[in-house]
Amino acid sequence: MPKRPLILVTNDDGITAPGIRTLISVMNKIGDVVVVAPDGPQSGMGHAITVNDTLYLEKVDIDGKQPEYSCSGTPADCVKLAVREILDRRPDICVSGINHGSNSSINVIYSGTMSAALEAGIEGIPAIGFSLLDYNWNANFEHCKTYVETVTRQALKHGMAKGVVLNVNLPNIEEKEIKGIKVCRQARANWEEEFDKRTNPMGREYYWLAGKFVNMDNGEDTDEWALENGYVSVVPVQFDMTAHREIQNLNTWNLNGKDAN
Amino acid sequence: MPKRPLILVTNDDGITAPGIRTLISVMNKIGDVVVVAPDGPQSGMGHAITVNDTLYLEKVDIDGKQPEYSCSGTPADCVKLAVREILDRRPDICVSGINHGSNSSINVIYSGTMSAALEAGIEGIPAIGFSLLDYNWNANFEHCKTYVETVTRQALKHGMAKGVVLNVNLPNIEEKEIKGIKVCRQARANWEEEFDKRTNPMGREYYWLAGKFVNMDNGEDTDEWALENGYVSVVPVQFDMTAHREIQNLNTWNLNGKDAN
Repeated sequence: MPKRPLILVTNDDGITAPGIRTLISVMNKIGDVVVVAPDGPQSGMGHAITVNDTLYLEKVDIDGKQPEYSCSGTPADCVKLAVREILDRRPDICVSGINHGSNSSINVIYSGTMSAALEAGIEGIPAIGFSLLDYNWNANFEHCKTYVETVTRQALKHGMAKGVVLNVNLPNIEEKEIKGIKVCRQARANWEEEFDKRTNPMGREYYWLAGKFVNMDNGEDTDEWALENGYVSVVPVQFDMTAHREIQNLNTWNLNGKDAN
Repeated sequence: MPKRPLILVTNDDGITAPGIRTLISVMNKIGDVVVVAPDGPQSGMGHAITVNDTLYLEKVDIDGKQPEYSCSGTPADCVKLAVREILDRRPDICVSGINHGSNSSINVIYSGTMSAALEAGIEGIPAIGFSLLDYNWNANFEHCKTYVETVTRQALKHGMAKGVVLNVNLPNIEEKEIKGIKVCRQARANWEEEFDKRTNPMGREYYWLAGKFVNMDNGEDTDEWALENGYVSVVPVQFDMTAHREIQNLNTWNLNGKDAN
């Protein structure tokens, strides 16, 4: 029998979040699990790393089932520390989540969950970020389990192309309403921010970031379409951010001519 | 004569950093400048946004030349606040930097400077991030000026393709040694982290993130090659992170079969 895979589990909602506890329970069916996750919520951190501050790492015991480490840093820090300081061999896969809230379309760029997966991918480790479209701490993750297991087992079986990680989002609907898993592209969407301006007790004005999500993409091959239509979306995500098609166009600019300025 | 362009200037080193002051001085030659920048250093923040905390915004006067606002949030927050709360019309371009330190190759993903440019790009505003390969606060930015002006003027003249922003890095060499501007792709590179483990005065262990940059890419069309060979690098960067070429491959996985698990 082949050796059980070594699975690194992390997230951005913190090590005690119900989403990561669900992810751990699924991963224990598949392989040997080590958890390295932030000691508190890190949402909206994007691909932050801790360069000007100290990092603390504590071995913790939450359910007695697998080695777990709580870290004062970001999700990307957790992956770096796991690979360099904790694990005695490279993990076969890194899974991040299950995030409490969507990381579909443009959210991928703000996502701590996906930054952990990307960091693992940069290290050459196959990686998947999982997110449920429910922001509640007490969200129900039961219906996610079978889909999380399928995507993870398939990723372990097929391996992952160099430079690519997976962004998996799960709709917040009854399990029997889920139509299946759909491979998608990132929808073109953005947030139309509104700032809620208030005055603090000392009379100083401040803002809260608010706003609504706007999908500007009518394609039926997008993650937004899939999620709205009852599918689990799987988007292959790359960290080569070069817009290769634009290189030829930029070479027509007068960047080196005498009259450039 | 056409109206002078409205230019939004931001950065991630903070509003008083020499890099942004240089950028402002160049932009004043080109158009009407408004500065909205963090009140302190934000390096390594990635594409962070402030979702669980308040945001403060102060009108400040640093050199009496242009309207300036100091913000308690991240570079991405600055762009959002500028567009929604400060500017009375959309800026013609957003420039971010000049960063004290490289944002070439994989650094783009950790970069606050580039997160501001990407945020502007998501808003449909042409945007450029500028970085100098010198981490020192007192770096010499003089030789950057002519190249920053050229790229900005050309971007204003030609416009920017939808979904694309520019990542411009400047080598830390004498102006007369610079060979010109080169359009590039992002080099395949990463950081080989080492953690410096120490013990604090209370006896608790902590870590500092350290490590060295490793370029694994031999291509002569990369930003790393350009910078090592005396060129200013310009990489078109996109925020559609989909690895489109992988979609077909993923569709061969058994994601919806009965024996998937």
